[in-house]
Amino acid sequence: MIGVGVIGYGYWGPNLVRNFVEAAGSRVVMVSDLRPERLAQVQSRYPSIRVTTHYEELLAHPEIDAVVIATPVSSHAAIATLALEQNKHVLVEKPMTASVDEAVQLVALAEARNRVLMVDHTFAYTAAVRKIRELIDTKALGDIYYYDAVRVNLGLFQHDVNVIWDLAVHDLAVMDYLFPSAPCALSATGISHIPGQPENVAYITLFFEEQQIAHVHVNWLAPVKVRRTLIGGSEKMVVYDDLEPSEKVKVYDKGVTLSERPEAVYQLLVSYRSGDMWAPRLDSREALQVEVEHFNDCVKNGKRPETDGHAGLRMARMLEAADRSLRARGEPVRLQTSEAAV
Amino acid sequence: MIGVGVIGYGYWGPNLVRNFVEAAGSRVVMVSDLRPERLAQVQSRYPSIRVTTHYEELLAHPEIDAVVIATPVSSHAAIATLALEQNKHVLVEKPMTASVDEAVQLVALAEARNRVLMVDHTFAYTAAVRKIRELIDTKALGDIYYYDAVRVNLGLFQHDVNVIWDLAVHDLAVMDYLFPSAPCALSATGISHIPGQPENVAYITLFFEEQQIAHVHVNWLAPVKVRRTLIGGSEKMVVYDDLEPSEKVKVYDKGVTLSERPEAVYQLLVSYRSGDMWAPRLDSREALQVEVEHFNDCVKNGKRPETDGHAGLRMARMLEAADRSLRARGEPVRLQTSEAAV
Amino acid sequence: MIGVGVIGYGYWGPNLVRNFVEAAGSRVVMVSDLRPERLAQVQSRYPSIRVTTHYEELLAHPEIDAVVIATPVSSHAAIATLALEQNKHVLVEKPMTASVDEAVQLVALAEARNRVLMVDHTFAYTAAVRKIRELIDTKALGDIYYYDAVRVNLGLFQHDVNVIWDLAVHDLAVMDYLFPSAPCALSATGISHIPGQPENVAYITLFFEEQQIAHVHVNWLAPVKVRRTLIGGSEKMVVYDDLEPSEKVKVYDKGVTLSERPEAVYQLLVSYRSGDMWAPRLDSREALQVEVEHFNDCVKNGKRPETDGHAGLRMARMLEAADRSLRARGEPVRLQTSEAAV
Amino acid sequence: MIGVGVIGYGYWGPNLVRNFVEAAGSRVVMVSDLRPERLAQVQSRYPSIRVTTHYEELLAHPEIDAVVIATPVSSHAAIATLALEQNKHVLVEKPMTASVDEAVQLVALAEARNRVLMVDHTFAYTAAVRKIRELIDTKALGDIYYYDAVRVNLGLFQHDVNVIWDLAVHDLAVMDYLFPSAPCALSATGISHIPGQPENVAYITLFFEEQQIAHVHVNWLAPVKVRRTLIGGSEKMVVYDDLEPSEKVKVYDKGVTLSERPEAVYQLLVSYRSGDMWAPRLDSREALQVEVEHFNDCVKNGKRPETDGHAGLRMARMLEAADRSLRARGEPVRLQTSEAAV
Repeated sequence: MIGVGVIGYGYWGPNLVRNFVEAAGSRVVMVSDLRPERLAQVQSRYPSIRVTTHYEELLAHPEIDAVVIATPVSSHAAIATLALEQNKHVLVEKPMTASVDEAVQLVALAEARNRVLMVDHTFAYTAAVRKIRELIDTKALGDIYYYDAVRVNLGLFQHDVNVIWDLAVHDLAVMDYLFPSAPCALSATGISHIPGQPENVAYITLFFEEQQIAHVHVNWLAPVKVRRTLIGGSEKMVVYDDLEPSEKVKVYDKGVTLSERPEAVYQLLVSYRSGDMWAPRLDSREALQVEVEHFNDCVKNGKRPETDGHAGLRMARMLEAADRSLRARGEPVRLQTSEAAV
Repeated sequence: MIGVGVIGYGYWGPNLVRNFVEAAGSRVVMVSDLRPERLAQVQSRYPSIRVTTHYEELLAHPEIDAVVIATPVSSHAAIATLALEQNKHVLVEKPMTASVDEAVQLVALAEARNRVLMVDHTFAYTAAVRKIRELIDTKALGDIYYYDAVRVNLGLFQHDVNVIWDLAVHDLAVMDYLFPSAPCALSATGISHIPGQPENVAYITLFFEEQQIAHVHVNWLAPVKVRRTLIGGSEKMVVYDDLEPSEKVKVYDKGVTLSERPEAVYQLLVSYRSGDMWAPRLDSREALQVEVEHFNDCVKNGKRPETDGHAGLRMARMLEAADRSLRARGEPVRLQTSEAAV
Repeated sequence: MIGVGVIGYGYWGPNLVRNFVEAAGSRVVMVSDLRPERLAQVQSRYPSIRVTTHYEELLAHPEIDAVVIATPVSSHAAIATLALEQNKHVLVEKPMTASVDEAVQLVALAEARNRVLMVDHTFAYTAAVRKIRELIDTKALGDIYYYDAVRVNLGLFQHDVNVIWDLAVHDLAVMDYLFPSAPCALSATGISHIPGQPENVAYITLFFEEQQIAHVHVNWLAPVKVRRTLIGGSEKMVVYDDLEPSEKVKVYDKGVTLSERPEAVYQLLVSYRSGDMWAPRLDSREALQVEVEHFNDCVKNGKRPETDGHAGLRMARMLEAADRSLRARGEPVRLQTSEAAV
Repeated sequence: MIGVGVIGYGYWGPNLVRNFVEAAGSRVVMVSDLRPERLAQVQSRYPSIRVTTHYEELLAHPEIDAVVIATPVSSHAAIATLALEQNKHVLVEKPMTASVDEAVQLVALAEARNRVLMVDHTFAYTAAVRKIRELIDTKALGDIYYYDAVRVNLGLFQHDVNVIWDLAVHDLAVMDYLFPSAPCALSATGISHIPGQPENVAYITLFFEEQQIAHVHVNWLAPVKVRRTLIGGSEKMVVYDDLEPSEKVKVYDKGVTLSERPEAVYQLLVSYRSGDMWAPRLDSREALQVEVEHFNDCVKNGKRPETDGHAGLRMARMLEAADRSLRARGEPVRLQTSEAAV
């Protein structure tokens, strides 16, 4: 039985606590938060869980094997470092860190201590995204041509981070999970419509060594809510619409076939193929339940998480680069892809 | 009665001929095309229209006051130049020219000869776009924050131009018509998935001196057809979906209001507003009919077209800059905005 | 402060308790349920509310002014009768009774005791339905021509009542609330696809003295979920789609205009009108909150509820008649409309 | 080469002529219409087709083997009778006749003369309907539970026939084509909102000897256009939406499974099954082309049409019964199903 401590009981913390409580292999030993009223809620709901306003107390607790960090992003690295130094396994909210440097150090520390370091890229554990990953892994889609995500709606302006760190992070996490290789460069653009506030509209294009492209469009100021991703492959194409109540993933047997005849220079080289559409049934389990069980499995059996510290590091690289490119009106920024170069 | 000659009877030519035939103030005198079988179709349908395979014959015809050019883009500038030199008024397919230089010279020539030079930005004459323009002109939308257009589907790969010149040109034309000022820079990205062929996916961000941004996403290789534009304003927002059979333009009384209290630094400064949605009835006239009548009116009464040579020049600047930026992975390219600088 | 007792803490009971707890004018004194485990939930959530497995105890409690009955329909009449005999005001789940006879007696008893008798036709208190009622009351729709409701999905087969008593009751309640007069007859058809089980597909047509018609289609065995009502008026028409996240009510300025010319016998007498569409902003308050405040207001100020015992009686008449017609393959059944005839 | 004569060149006639002209096995010899201006259109488009204002001349023409009747329904029986008496094969618009008696006589005459008698139930030849028929024939849907069709929109009020004869006829034709057995009774309701005019809203329920039900909802006065049919089977269910541009037929692997345990009286006997959804690719050929080739094949090879005179007779029975039931507010009317009873 893995003893778990949860630091931060704000918006997402209650979901984390509930899932670790319900998971077979773990129990929640302690929850910390700076706000006593939040801790009172923990106690009324889970009388057996201990609470504290000092997370250091939690980190020092001998029955705690793993620490879950759900605090503001600026504090992630410091808390995670302390936890790893106490030889705790760590699951940290996304984005894992506020900078690439922090991420590099955290990954190195986790490896030195031989502890699990996992980042909560929740969407990677949804049934929809895992089904798409399966379609990619089994080559059902063929070669991946592009990934195009739109995540727009009205609301929830943040004051400390821009719309990329708030919304695009979800799509970049999905892309990172789905794609076999990481992007080698990106170009980002965006704007703030509210003076002195972070960007509320942004666009990111990601380039790859392969013949691939990815794009993310995020907007806090849109009249309608859209959560739609198009994925084009040489064999099939996917529309993933997270707002669809039942058919979230639609697989289209559509594409183009190229003429091989070299003499056909002035003729149409491309013919179009249009076949069935298919919406696979998706597992109805909660993503966070899948994720928590995976974390427990990694802790117990020494496995490497699907969204490990390296995923968190790749995310930090993309976010930092996006901010840099955005300030330079889309000037491309290279991304380090070699792991050795860490 | 304006005598009209139409050069090029391919995909769009028949629509142009039909509308000039039906318009009250014009008659079609002659049609030219290199392909005799196309001219045979003209004759079977309009026995009174003369035909020729030599457009020079058409340009020299004394009864022809205005020339409509619907040939491949590479020939636009040369034919339009000859027409203007013969003191004909000119309506030319979009894009007006294949380069900025050609566009600059054409605009100068038209002004020197005092002839109408109009570019066929058809979407600017649709009921949907004109209704949106009205909402902008009357300040119903407030300050314009952003323009975001998506135009994707499977099909019709071009071999001589990329997807920007084929599809984005429509959205750039709409934006040019709607926005009171022209963009000052752009960043474009894209990719070709078919070796040796032009880009089939592209993204363009356009920057303005004002607190505005525009973005166009075009794709020849998408599993679903999308024609959707979001326009955000400080007062209202618009969703323009060209595939909707009846409610193409939806106006949302949505937005944010900013708190004035300076002390509220750590509190939420933004509050959200959500009111009625409204889909105005749209005129059902064919866009090309509206456009042709406008051209005739400009020719007859010496008016300046809504989509004049300067619109064609601005388009040429955007297309050239987009190609340049695209090759440099999104590196921003400045756009000349001053008319004086022509 | 109205003292409230809630009988039945199953599916809907918790919502009732929560809303009476939160409403300004009432407090929940006691909850009864036959299942101790349900009462334990009440106590853990609301330590100050008393609980009992004997509803007689609740009915006898002197601090209880009003009783809310959320038990199976077969027990409604008996419990409501006891409550009224104890001079309690009564709010009862829909359908109010299992028969017309029970409903007649309950209405008479409530009037004799001068107590509020209200039936929980929840949809009548939704923002969408109240907006439509406003459009009807202000004659914005003109004369009402028809009401057509579809409520289908896969799931939740009942074993004691058929799909009319389970699903159509919602639409009949909305219609009863919206229409100024009650239907005078109905014809119902339906089928059970599972031997020995109640009908799982049903259709009801309702006739009126006026030039109106209503129709309800309900189905427990449909592949997709539909909750859509069309309301046609002489001036405007409404589409009410309860699954739309934001624009639940759309008002179409559409209709027909009749030619007055008597000589036009063989000409088209009907011309079509198509104007703007408009989706009014809807109040976001929970329907049950509106309803509970209305009940409290009626109790406190001696008002007659919008969904009073007569509404419950009209519903009982429709349900009984529908069952009778359904067994006779649509044979029309007259409905008593005169209140005096009770 | 089958010589074809087409009687009636109104709304549908041009489509019939075009398809018989283009079909491999037939040529159009003559077209008749009472209106000379319609015949002028035939001649300008098809100079080789002869025209006449007297259909008797057409019927007497020796090169004509088959006659296509596209006149108002009241004249169908008389013209078809003359054509069969001249030993012509006959394809007649739907509905085949204005009464059951006429249909019975026409079927008998065609059999006596051994001529093809086919009714133009066009939807039976669409790719969507034929795909659904294939799913039914191969038992992919299991036992058919219900058929529910909605065909509503604003417009095209008829003055001589009600909305059942105008719109429901399409859905009844589809149902007749799809279902292995004919309905044994029906109940219809409806209303006219325009004094002195035929019913513009109608509902028909059809009963079968089997555990099946069908329902058709038609309306000339609806604010939105709907063309949607739900078909429930014991194994799978279909949504057929004719307004969908590409995925018109969606097959849902959804349904219920019944518990076998007899002791589970108070437990849920029904469990729900939800699997993949699948939208098969549909043939893009025009329905009328498929139909015309089928007619030619029947004429040439003495085959029995898929929509033969008996289909026309079953339709006449349904329409007559629906009118009768409608006047009696849904009173059920039995339908003759035995062919021997003709």
